[in-house]
Amino acid sequence: MLKPLGDRVILEVEKEEEKTVGGIVLAGNAKEKPQTAKVVAVGTGRILDNGEKVAMTVKAGDVVVFDKYAGSEVEYDGVKYLVMHEKDLLAIVE
Amino acid sequence: MLKPLGDRVILEVEKEEEKTVGGIVLAGNAKEKPQTAKVVAVGTGRILDNGEKVAMTVKAGDVVVFDKYAGSEVEYDGVKYLVMHEKDLLAIVE
Amino acid sequence: MLKPLGDRVILEVEKEEEKTVGGIVLAGNAKEKPQTAKVVAVGTGRILDNGEKVAMTVKAGDVVVFDKYAGSEVEYDGVKYLVMHEKDLLAIVE
Amino acid sequence: MLKPLGDRVILEVEKEEEKTVGGIVLAGNAKEKPQTAKVVAVGTGRILDNGEKVAMTVKAGDVVVFDKYAGSEVEYDGVKYLVMHEKDLLAIVE
Amino acid sequence: MLKPLGDRVILEVEKEEEKTVGGIVLAGNAKEKPQTAKVVAVGTGRILDNGEKVAMTVKAGDVVVFDKYAGSEVEYDGVKYLVMHEKDLLAIVE
Amino acid sequence: MLKPLGDRVILEVEKEEEKTVGGIVLAGNAKEKPQTAKVVAVGTGRILDNGEKVAMTVKAGDVVVFDKYAGSEVEYDGVKYLVMHEKDLLAIVE
Amino acid sequence: MLKPLGDRVILEVEKEEEKTVGGIVLAGNAKEKPQTAKVVAVGTGRILDNGEKVAMTVKAGDVVVFDKYAGSEVEYDGVKYLVMHEKDLLAIVE
Repeated sequence: MLKPLGDRVILEVEKEEEKTVGGIVLAGNAKEKPQTAKVVAVGTGRILDNGEKVAMTVKAGDVVVFDKYAGSEVEYDGVKYLVMHEKDLLAIVE
Repeated sequence: MLKPLGDRVILEVEKEEEKTVGGIVLAGNAKEKPQTAKVVAVGTGRILDNGEKVAMTVKAGDVVVFDKYAGSEVEYDGVKYLVMHEKDLLAIVE
Repeated sequence: MLKPLGDRVILEVEKEEEKTVGGIVLAGNAKEKPQTAKVVAVGTGRILDNGEKVAMTVKAGDVVVFDKYAGSEVEYDGVKYLVMHEKDLLAIVE
Repeated sequence: MLKPLGDRVILEVEKEEEKTVGGIVLAGNAKEKPQTAKVVAVGTGRILDNGEKVAMTVKAGDVVVFDKYAGSEVEYDGVKYLVMHEKDLLAIVE
Repeated sequence: MLKPLGDRVILEVEKEEEKTVGGIVLAGNAKEKPQTAKVVAVGTGRILDNGEKVAMTVKAGDVVVFDKYAGSEVEYDGVKYLVMHEKDLLAIVE
Repeated sequence: MLKPLGDRVILEVEKEEEKTVGGIVLAGNAKEKPQTAKVVAVGTGRILDNGEKVAMTVKAGDVVVFDKYAGSEVEYDGVKYLVMHEKDLLAIVE
Repeated sequence: MLKPLGDRVILEVEKEEEKTVGGIVLAGNAKEKPQTAKVVAVGTGRILDNGEKVAMTVKAGDVVVFDKYAGSEVEYDGVKYLVMHEKDLLAIVE
């Protein structure tokens, strides 16, 4: 399995047609179009300038909205994942 | 519902014709044209370099003026929202 | 009324022909041409990296000189305002 | 042998045809295409503004995913290595 | 009078023909050509990240050399001034 | 002799044909092509924001790999040297 | 005389033909070509984020190598000087 480093998260990207799952519809205007995904794994957190570690605010299983232009794509065991920093996550879909 | 992360806010954007609600008229000059919206949800706040958390200065229900070029658009359950950082909010309309 | 957020100020912009009010004439050279305005409202101040809040150094009623390229324009109840950060103010006209 | 400085790592790059080793397939879309490699050596870690040293989170022998555009190539004793900062590593393949 | 804000200074610019006052001749090469001026007023100083205020190192009456591309021009009561940050001053002419 | 300032190092650049000394061959791909050199002299170290000095991690006599695009060239007593910051050194060749 | 501000130094530039004084010959390749000069005066030092002042590491009388693209030219009492920050000095010629 992929274990994210630092404050990164591994996201399993919703297929395009599942775009409305969890009620999220991608607004197709000129703005950055956020995307939905499920959190598969989270890193151990970000280290501040004073050495303190900031805990992650999302956990595996959360459905999140994120910026479409963020992250790197990785395919692992036939599944497409996105790896990005926690700061690129906009909101949790409750 | 959308739960914003970090120091972000979820805004419900005023429809264009409601542009004057709360007395705000968008100045159409070359400058950034601020926009009005109602705060629907706020994050838990920003974390400083020393690990301290700074409380949010706006709350759900506030009507705010913000920079039109800020934030990401998300449509959820048929409603159009904007997700942006608190620092992109200019003022509260009292 | 507009309540500025953070270290922002709300300025009521002097009409162009009043350019000389308070003795200020805009130098028309290639440099940034500062502008004059009256402070209508001020925010609560800037938060430093150590969490400390720095008080504002201008107050409502002050006449200030500022950079013409700074700030966002907002029209509220028929009056034209500028919203900008305190750091974009150059001097107070005493 | 190469001893990396600061928070750098020395990676032995997987040959292109071994692209699927450890289950990783490089997604060929427009996004940064992460790459796989084995960690050969790690530096002593990053020094923070307060003088504290942050231990490395990867060790020799780990298989990692990293950004393809990161790092500098070095060939040493006939073997091709990549030298990059720890922050350019995305995840560990467990 | 103009009261500069923060770590800014108000400078009264030497007329071009007075270019050699205080022995300073502007080197006309491609580099930034420093300029001479008299300090008319100084701000209260710069605030550091830890909240400490750093006193100004120039005072009214000093003749200084500064970068020609720095600052904003303001004309007040018929006199041409430059408003700039202390960091744009290169040296004091003693 | 040249005494480097701050966290800089003075490097004696290997002649092109000696490219393979110490086993290092420059990978000629599009990436930054690191280069080899011997450390001739080191500065006293870098000063952090809190005033602490960080000791240098390389010493005179080390053979190092560095980024080819870093540093400034100086010829002194007929010998060609490179002066660069320690952060531009990638690894020590042991 | 010119009294440099902050962490700046005043350098008396070697005339072109004296380029080899102190054994320094300017490498004419594409890299930044360092230049030699004598330190005429130094500022009081740099102030760190924590308010601490860092003493200067060069003094009047030192011969230094610096980046040719750094600094501002000033001519004073018929002598050509360069004013630059200490960080633009590469090494002391001993």
